[in-house]
This record gives sequence, structure tokens and C-alpha cells, in this order.
Amino acid sequence: MHTNPSNEMALTSNASNKKETVCIFGTGDFGRALGYKMIQSGYSVVFGSRQAQTSSLIPKDAAVLSHTEAAQKAAIIIIAIPRQHYNFLIPLAEILHGKVLVDVSNNLKLNQYPQSNAEYLAQLIPGAKVVKAFNTVSAWALQSGTLDASRQVFVCGDDKKAKQMVMDIVRALGLTPLDQGSLLAAQEIENYPLQLFPMWKFPIFLSLGLTAFFFFYCLTRDVIYPYVYEKTDFSFFIAISIPNRICPIVALILLALVYLPGVLAAIIQLYRGTKYSRFPVWLDKWMLCRKQLGLVALAFAFLHVLYTLIIPIRYYVRWRMNSRVLSQALNNRTDPFINTNGWLSDSYLALGILGFFLFVLLGITSLPSVSNSVNWQEFRFVQSKLGYLTLILCTAHTLVYGGSRFLNASSYRWYLPNAYMLSLIVPCTVLVVKFVLIFPCLDKPLTQIRQGWERNPRYSEHSNYIINKSAV
Amino acid sequence: MHTNPSNEMALTSNASNKKETVCIFGTGDFGRALGYKMIQSGYSVVFGSRQAQTSSLIPKDAAVLSHTEAAQKAAIIIIAIPRQHYNFLIPLAEILHGKVLVDVSNNLKLNQYPQSNAEYLAQLIPGAKVVKAFNTVSAWALQSGTLDASRQVFVCGDDKKAKQMVMDIVRALGLTPLDQGSLLAAQEIENYPLQLFPMWKFPIFLSLGLTAFFFFYCLTRDVIYPYVYEKTDFSFFIAISIPNRICPIVALILLALVYLPGVLAAIIQLYRGTKYSRFPVWLDKWMLCRKQLGLVALAFAFLHVLYTLIIPIRYYVRWRMNSRVLSQALNNRTDPFINTNGWLSDSYLALGILGFFLFVLLGITSLPSVSNSVNWQEFRFVQSKLGYLTLILCTAHTLVYGGSRFLNASSYRWYLPNAYMLSLIVPCTVLVVKFVLIFPCLDKPLTQIRQGWERNPRYSEHSNYIINKSAV
Amino acid sequence: MHTNPSNEMALTSNASNKKETVCIFGTGDFGRALGYKMIQSGYSVVFGSRQAQTSSLIPKDAAVLSHTEAAQKAAIIIIAIPRQHYNFLIPLAEILHGKVLVDVSNNLKLNQYPQSNAEYLAQLIPGAKVVKAFNTVSAWALQSGTLDASRQVFVCGDDKKAKQMVMDIVRALGLTPLDQGSLLAAQEIENYPLQLFPMWKFPIFLSLGLTAFFFFYCLTRDVIYPYVYEKTDFSFFIAISIPNRICPIVALILLALVYLPGVLAAIIQLYRGTKYSRFPVWLDKWMLCRKQLGLVALAFAFLHVLYTLIIPIRYYVRWRMNSRVLSQALNNRTDPFINTNGWLSDSYLALGILGFFLFVLLGITSLPSVSNSVNWQEFRFVQSKLGYLTLILCTAHTLVYGGSRFLNASSYRWYLPNAYMLSLIVPCTVLVVKFVLIFPCLDKPLTQIRQGWERNPRYSEHSNYIINKSAV
Repeated sequence: MHTNPSNEMALTSNASNKKETVCIFGTGDFGRALGYKMIQSGYSVVFGSRQAQTSSLIPKDAAVLSHTEAAQKAAIIIIAIPRQHYNFLIPLAEILHGKVLVDVSNNLKLNQYPQSNAEYLAQLIPGAKVVKAFNTVSAWALQSGTLDASRQVFVCGDDKKAKQMVMDIVRALGLTPLDQGSLLAAQEIENYPLQLFPMWKFPIFLSLGLTAFFFFYCLTRDVIYPYVYEKTDFSFFIAISIPNRICPIVALILLALVYLPGVLAAIIQLYRGTKYSRFPVWLDKWMLCRKQLGLVALAFAFLHVLYTLIIPIRYYVRWRMNSRVLSQALNNRTDPFINTNGWLSDSYLALGILGFFLFVLLGITSLPSVSNSVNWQEFRFVQSKLGYLTLILCTAHTLVYGGSRFLNASSYRWYLPNAYMLSLIVPCTVLVVKFVLIFPCLDKPLTQIRQGWERNPRYSEHSNYIINKSAV
Repeated sequence: MHTNPSNEMALTSNASNKKETVCIFGTGDFGRALGYKMIQSGYSVVFGSRQAQTSSLIPKDAAVLSHTEAAQKAAIIIIAIPRQHYNFLIPLAEILHGKVLVDVSNNLKLNQYPQSNAEYLAQLIPGAKVVKAFNTVSAWALQSGTLDASRQVFVCGDDKKAKQMVMDIVRALGLTPLDQGSLLAAQEIENYPLQLFPMWKFPIFLSLGLTAFFFFYCLTRDVIYPYVYEKTDFSFFIAISIPNRICPIVALILLALVYLPGVLAAIIQLYRGTKYSRFPVWLDKWMLCRKQLGLVALAFAFLHVLYTLIIPIRYYVRWRMNSRVLSQALNNRTDPFINTNGWLSDSYLALGILGFFLFVLLGITSLPSVSNSVNWQEFRFVQSKLGYLTLILCTAHTLVYGGSRFLNASSYRWYLPNAYMLSLIVPCTVLVVKFVLIFPCLDKPLTQIRQGWERNPRYSEHSNYIINKSAV
Repeated sequence: MHTNPSNEMALTSNASNKKETVCIFGTGDFGRALGYKMIQSGYSVVFGSRQAQTSSLIPKDAAVLSHTEAAQKAAIIIIAIPRQHYNFLIPLAEILHGKVLVDVSNNLKLNQYPQSNAEYLAQLIPGAKVVKAFNTVSAWALQSGTLDASRQVFVCGDDKKAKQMVMDIVRALGLTPLDQGSLLAAQEIENYPLQLFPMWKFPIFLSLGLTAFFFFYCLTRDVIYPYVYEKTDFSFFIAISIPNRICPIVALILLALVYLPGVLAAIIQLYRGTKYSRFPVWLDKWMLCRKQLGLVALAFAFLHVLYTLIIPIRYYVRWRMNSRVLSQALNNRTDPFINTNGWLSDSYLALGILGFFLFVLLGITSLPSVSNSVNWQEFRFVQSKLGYLTLILCTAHTLVYGGSRFLNASSYRWYLPNAYMLSLIVPCTVLVVKFVLIFPCLDKPLTQIRQGWERNPRYSEHSNYIINKSAV
């Protein structure tokens, strides 16, 4: 029962109390910030520098040595110097042999060099195990501890054990390592922090294009036309009235474009009779940015709601309503209540409210933390079933808004139909095709195809390996 | 100082550059997607298949062998075949001995078999170490890299080391393993992806029930009654007016039901004089779905806000206002401003705005990523203190709305009180009881009980182990 | 080809099937809950207690032994007893030698003791390896499995291996360990759960102060002044009209205060000619709570939007509009439409809508899960570029609201300018200074300084190590 504590103590403290030493080449902002954070997390840090002298800027618990001396002290060496200076490592090749070199560098432009910095480093020092990491982390965030932006650290490398060692450090610093595979991924990882919302580009440019088109369309119909024919100045419509026409139109079109690729994929699969053939590239890309399309649509819908709710406090609206009442009063006349108008107005508004409500629900479930806490079936239920319901409600909202105006000649100015009519084309197409696809004669073969059945097995042999993407 | 780099190199590359080999039985969608992802993450993958021939669908870096050959190449074998075909593994039992078998299967129905697939597998091959994992991941998500839904992978198994090996793979694929304990948890894990919002069922059905009840209640009072007695057609009230009565009522009742179980639990604890006796099952369940109840209530409150803000642009409302002004104008009469009405109208609206604002705050703090970044005390402060304040404000909002109408005989049609009066029952009860519980003569013993004091220690001996749930 | 499965089996099951044993000292709520959860996660749990008898409250799979016996069974001992009773561990020092002691205790007050509980424990039992952990987790959350609040477990300790062992347990329980470094961090970790939104204190108190000031300011101008001079009772303005003046003012000032420290930092850096000198402490603190300031500002802006949208259904507003129409009708007069007013009213509203829209976008991107999924450059783009655009739009909204009223003498009551004029001071200052800083003659040296250039290298030698904080 009586153990020998002193012995045990001696053993364990030897094994575990010895802090792991990490070497950092380079004493710039990033190197110092990383060193500072590592010391905080219990590592022993040695800087390798041309002038081996401690500066007041270096964390005080760290030693500054020559590159050679520093490298010999640690198994992991973080290369916190710009790519242009990597050459100076060549004379150190022998010392760096077998060491883990962590490339933390970033470039200034996308694909600045044909070869990624990490691969270039691996080529310069073939005996070392190069791991790419930390390039997405900001020096300031590391230093101040306010990691508001991503805590994710992409890690890649050819040597699994080296990668594991680096990922352990990442975890110890309170960050989340994400293994991206072999060093081939370095190019992508180096491009990552240079990109500004790559998935959002197409949706945003598309919506800006649509906005511009409908702006000039509405300007022509609602401002220029009355100015030409009635000499009335409605230029102030540019501030609210026209935006409030554009927003719902763009929102509805974008929402329909979220569901169009799913419908197209189903048609392609039915036509080809297999799910094992690759979709056209544009369809693949389109499908991958559906979430972003939907969120941009939600932003436009949100603006539409705000513009609509503000209507009754607009000076123009108040003036028009008052002058209408006054003209009735002066003519000693009272407009009767028309029940149909009551129904149309209320159901139009109710459909809009319900559509917007479901749209907001969809938006909330696409927040990363919410979508992470639902299972796959729940996610599909919300994004597909509720999504189609949203599209149906919003389309119905627009149709009821049109009401009897569709056939009214006065709503065609210069042969231009009202803008909302144009907005109905895509959503109605999507809904009609989707409705047709639900019929058993089409739904049954489609389900079979998606379960792996092939009408024409020859087909797939020539095709690449691809998983059915039409989870819609 | 001069190390022998070539030796070191030889050693380390042997140890770490050798990729771990994983075997996958089954070349279906899921098996291939998993294999594809594993190759990307640096594993070496071998498929076991009946026809040991490479198909164009198989990732090109993977070998396809017979089951026997494939199994011998790896320590971990992923069984990506349906449960119905598990029988074919029996002849392979000897080869599978000591291997880690990963069951990734799902069923089509909840509790389809009395025994979970993983346990069935463990029983078929008693010499293998079965681990359940990956069943919640979608093949498409794995393949396309767009893990919009959960990154969580539930893992369970009786063998700790085997489980650790599988969890390492999960992490290497960029997913988050969640250890669920022994293989007994497999049933639950297999049921998980088949469930559609299990925690939401009760709140949603309850709210639908309440909605239906109040719909017919309001329909009777607001549409049928005037039709019978005044021959006026208010059927268009169905679109907005009636929903805008139902929404606040249901929201208020649901919000009160969030706080009712906490109050009931306090009464039970006071009555029993101990916190160590189990609450009735219904109370436990109720407490666990309080968050969902609150969020459904918030959804109804949000709809109420939209329905209310839209009021001034309804055709009916505009017509009624105009006709009121016209009748004044025609009678040459001006209604005077009544200060009391100004107060009532404004304070009623202000209470509603503040209540809704706090409600939205509560909703935001219940987002997973937000509630994860607050500590326990902060979470309780928001959910309990701010929650009660929200309930008080919303109840007051309804009371002021009632104003002097409570005693007005004309608001009782067919002896039915106005619907909002019914909605006040639960919240007022909760607030009154909570108010009583704050009195020192009750609060003091309750605090003592919650700190572990027992009035009647006998009691707890017969009871099961349970932690005090009334954190409210 | 024929392996010897029985041998292999015997080996592996020995190595891995044996469950790790964890010892828990103390059978209170927290100890039992932790034990319960550990058993669920596959650990073997032994309780150490004064009375070594199993109670009905102890999880049934756990043994209850004397402290000495229990401690000998495990390498890790969780000390789930209050700090006041730590003394009883001294006689056990020999048995605890070399063991990992996990301190899970919390205090009742901030900095209750000069020394943290964990350091006190380490001093009492110098031979043990003390790790601080689990103090932020609630017993109820552990037990019920509803970890709504944080899943983060802060871990610190001087022994790296011991810390790693504890972090493995944390992970096995489905929680997220966060390594906080050496045991020196224990004080901070123990204070953490006692703090109530420490980062929010300054923004909330500041906004409450501003609210109080502007409340009395507006009360004087809008209620007391008309009462004194016109004998009219506008006391009901307290409910909506005055809050709707205060909210936008406070929101605008707070939003400007988010961007003021960045501007100040730039001026300081330009003046000092280096980024390597520490900012004043108040500026550092201010910069770290910018996110909270912005979110409080958003809350006020949200209230402003609600208060504004509700305007048309206020009794007072309806009455005033009607009486205006009636006076026109009775005088047989119709006010003409003034185009300038149409422009002013609409552009004022449109600027407000767009400003609020961008503000909401900023708020959404500051949700932890969203900001975690963008890279550093994207985060800066949104928070800096979009942030300034929001500030510009909101300032313009206020300026247009003012319109021609700035010079109107009637808007100065008792020489007090309209409240919105006061709100413009800070945002206009920030925007003007920022605009000046964009000029090349200032922007160029600033950029150089931020890249590390120093006008006067002497300066930095006396300064501490600090990274440039002005990422704005």
C-alpha cells in the first residue's frame, strides 16, 4: 500500500513538466504574436533571427538565437518570414533535416506564384517535413485574444505525424485545426485569406444586375412616362416607391433561382436515366451557391418589408389620402365599402406576411450554429419543404397583388407591362415544372434513378464518379 | 552538434509517412463518398466488394479487392452495406477477429428492429470490436464538402481504443466526434437521423391546437355573430384581423407555459421538503422543451408584430378611417382629443414594443453559438430574469389593451368574453404564484431546499437519484 | 494468411477494454452529476467520502469508498468539495503524491481569496499535479444533458501531461476544453462564472447614462415647455414620442463611439510616428468593447424602428391627422402637394431604412457562428467598410430629418436646441476626421507606420511589446 512517491514524482515530472520547445524563424509582427501566444499556452519558445539579440519587442520569456542554434533546440520550426527570403534557409538544410517546418506565409494576390509557398519551401529543403498552417489567423487577434473572426486553422502536409504535431499546437492555442489533406492543398489554403466572399460573388452580381435593370425599367414607366405625358414630377419616387418595386421583384426572382437548379437536375437525371453522370459545371456551381442566393433574396425581402411598413408615414401618401378624403367631403359623397377589395387587400398582405415569416425561418436555420444542431433530414425538411412553401406563398402574394390589373390596359405604358409581371415568370415556371415532376409517372422513375437504378447502364461507364447532387 | 540526418529521416518517414489503411465493405453511394473523403484526408482506402473489379465510380486511388483480401489490409473496416446483408459477414468472422468494425447503417423507420444494427453486428461477429459512427452524415454533404447540416458524428462502442481510432478518423475528415458511450447508445444514434424535430413536436402541436381553438372562437364572435345579428359580411377578417387576434394570444399563453413548470417545481419541492425526489415525468419533459416553447411563442409574437404594423395600409382600415372623418366633416363636427385615450393607446403600444424587444433578445441568446459564449450565470440571468420581465411586459400589454373593455357588456357576444381575456388566465396565474413565492416566508425554505436541506430526510431514501431541475 | 485471432484478441481487449478509473472526492450535487456523466461516457468512477456507504443518490455503477481507498484506485482525482474543507486532504498528501488533482471549485464572490482555489490546493499538496477545470459547467446541465449554456471548459495547470489527461476527459464528456495555460490562470478561470457580462458593463452603463440625460432633456423641451407656455398636457409623450427621440440619438452616438477609438489610434500613431508604443489603457479597453457598443447601438436602432413603424396606429397621430383634414374640409381648402417635402420625407426614410438594413447585417456577422465562418479579410471588410457606410447613412438620415429646421428659431425652446442636433456632434466629428485621414498626405505615412516603419526608432525602445491594435 505504501508507494514510493519520490520516485514516481521524479519520473512523471521528467516526462511531463518539461515544456515542449518550438522555434520561430523571424521576429516580425506575426512571429512575435505567435510566440507570445505559445508562451501563454505553456510552450517554450526560441526565436531564430539574423541579429541574435533580444529586443524589447520580443516576449520576455523567449530566447533569441542565431537561426542555426535556434533550429537545433526544437523539433518544430515556424517559418514566419516572407517567401522572398526563403533562400536563406538553403544553407541550413542539413540542420533542418527531419524537422517539421511550419509555413505560415500568405501572398498579396491570388495565385501570385505558380507554386504555393509551402510547396516551394518543401522543394528548397527536401529533407524537412513541411506543414502549412496558421496563415488564416491574424496577428492582432492572436495577441489581443479577441478572436472575433475565424478560430479555424487550415492545416495540410504530406507527413501525417508532423501534421499531427502542428494540429496539437493549434489546439493548445485554443484554435480549431482543420486537416485539409496533403501539401497539394497549400495553394488553396494560401488563397483562402485573400478571397472576399467567393461564394457570394455570383449572387451579389446577379442581384445588382437585376436591380439595375428593374431600376431603369421602373424609372421609365413611373417617372419618365408621367413626366412626358402628364408633365407631373414624380422624381421623388426614386427614394422609396421604385426601390419598393425593385426589392420584392429581385427577392422573388432570386428565391425562384434557388429552386430552379434542383428542378433542372431532376430533368437532366430523368433524361439521362442515371444519376451517375456528372452535371454540367455551371449547374454544379449554381447548386453550391443556392444558400447564398437565398440569403441575398432574404435581404431584398427584408428591405421590401421595411419600405412597405414605412408607407403610411410618407408625406406623399398622407397627402394623397387626405386629398382623396377632402374631395369626397367637398363633393358631399362617401365611397362605399367594397367587400372584394377588402378580401384582395387583406389576403395579399396576409400572404406576404406568411411568406416573409417562413423566409426569415429559412434564414435562421441557415445560420451555421443552427444548421449544425439539426440532423440531415430536418435540414432537408426545412430547406426543401418550407422553402417551396415560401416560394408558393411569395408567388401567390405577387399574383394577388396583381389582382385584376393583369388585363387592365392602363397598366401597360409604352407597351411595357408592370414590372411585377416580369418577376412572375421564373417562379411560376419553377412551380409548374416542380408540380409536373410530382406526378407519379415522373416521380417514380426519378426516385428509382436516385436510388441508383440506371435506365442505360452503358452511360455511366464513360462518366466520372459523382454523387447525386439533387438533394432537392 | 552534427546530427545524422539521414538516419533520423529514415526513422521518421517510416513511422509517419506510411498512410493508415482503412477498408470499406460496400461500394454504394455512402461507401464511395466516405472513401473519397478519406483519400482526400490522407488515408489509403481499400474497398471490399463481391465483384473485385474497379468501376469508374470508385475513387481512382482506391483498390477494390475481395472482402477477405480487403479486410486483411486494414485494422478498421467500415461496413457500408445494409443490415439485411450482414449475414454474409459470418463466414469472414475469423478474418474480422480483433478488427474494428464501423457500423454506419441507418434504418428506414424508428425502432425498426428490436436490436440496433450495431449490436446485431457485434452479436454476429463476437470477436470484432464494433463501433457505431457516421450514420448521421449525408453522402452528398461528404462528397460536395458543403456540410451545411451537422458536422457532428455520434460515436459509440464498447471498446474504448477502437472508439478512439474511429474518432481520430472523424476528426481527420474535418468532422466533430461526439462520444455517446457504450454500444447500448447505438439504438438512439440510429434513431437520431430518422427524427424530425423531436423536441419541437409538443410545442408545435400545442400551438396548433391553441390556434385552431381560438380561430373558431374568434370566427364565432367576429364573423358569425355580426352576420347573424347585423347581416354584415366580415368574412375577410379571416385573412388578417382574426390571425392578429390569435397570434398574440397563443404567444402569450406559450410564453407563460415556459415559466409555469418552474413555478410548479418550486411548489412540489416546498411541499415535499426536499429536492432529491424525482419530479413527475410530464414535468421533466415539459422542462426540457421550455426553450422550444419559448421559440414557438416568439414566432407567434413576430407574426403579431407584422400583422399589427400592416394595419394602416389595409383597405378596410383606410376606408373606415376615411368614412369616420367624412361623417364628422358632413356633420360639421370635430371630435375632441381625449388625453386618457392618448395615454392608453401609447402605453399599450410601448409595452408591446418593449415586450417584443426583450422577447427577440431572449431568442437571440438561445441561438446555439450565442448561448455557447456566455457563462452559466449569464445564461440564467437572461433566461430567467429577462424572461420574467418579458412575461410581465406582455401581460401588461394585454391588460392595458383591455383597458375599460373588461366590464363593458357589449364585448360579451353570446356570453363569450373577448378572446384576449382567456389568454390572460395562464400568465396572470404564473405571475401571481411567482410573486407569492418571492415572499421571504416561502423563498427562504425554498432556497434551503435547493441547497440540499431536507425537511424530512426519510423521503429521499426511497427516491431515485435526481438533481434539482428547477434552476428557475 | 491465417492469423492467430485469439492471441490478437486477448492482447487488444486487455489493452483497451479496461475502463479508465476516475476518483471523485465529495458526493455533493456536482460530484454526483460529474460521476453520472462520466459513467455514461464509459469511465469507471469511484467516490471518496467520509462515510463510505452507498446512498441512493450515488449513481448505481459507482463505488463509494474511503478517501484513501478511492484515491489509490485512480490516477485522476476530482476534488468536488468546497475550498474550506481542503485541509482534510493534508493527511492524504502521501497517497495523492504524483496524482492529478482536478480542482472544480468556484467561489461566491470575485477575488474572494487572495490566492485561487487551485493554487491553494497545489500549495497544500505540493506533490500532486493540480489542474483547474469544470468550474464553468453547471451540475444541472451535466445531468440533464441540455447544455444550453457554454460547452466550453477552461483548463489550466502547470503539468502538461496532467492537463492533457483532463482535457481528454473533457472531450469524452462531449465538452470543449480550452487550454488557458499555467495554474496562474486559475484565478481568472474561477472569476469567470461569477461575472455577469463583464464586456457589456461599459456599453450598457454608457447607454443608460445617455438615455437618462436625453430623457430629461426631451421632457423639458417637449412636455414641460408646452405645459408652462401653452398649458397643454403632453405627458403621454413619455410613452412613445420621447423614447422615439432618445433611441435614435443614443444609437447614433454609440455607433459613432464604435469608430472613434480607431480614429484616435490613427492620430496617436501618426503623432508618435510608430506603432510599437502602447496605447493608453482607456483606449485599449475601449477598442476591446467596440463589438458590444455596436450591438447595444443596434438594440436602440431596433427600438427606434419599432417605435417609428407604430406611429400611424397611435390614437394621437390619427386624431391629429383627422383634425387637420377636417379643418381643411371645413375651410373648403386643400393643401397643395409640395415636391420638396416629398423628396425630403422620402429620402429621409430611405436613408434610415438602408442604414438600419446595413446595421442588421453588421449585427448578424457579429454572431459568433457567422464570424467564425468568414476569414479575417472578410470580417474586416464587413466591420470596417460596411460599418462606416452604416455610420454615414445614419448620420445623413439625421441630417435630412433636420432639414431646414436647423436655422428655425421656433425649434429652440429655452435656448435648448432640438435633441437630434446634439446627437450629430460625435458622428460628424468621426466622419470628418476619418475623411481627413484618407488624404494621401496622411494616409501614406500611416500605412508605412502600420507596416512597421518608425519615424523615430528611439521611441520604441522604452515601450513595451505591443502589436498594432488599430486594425481599423
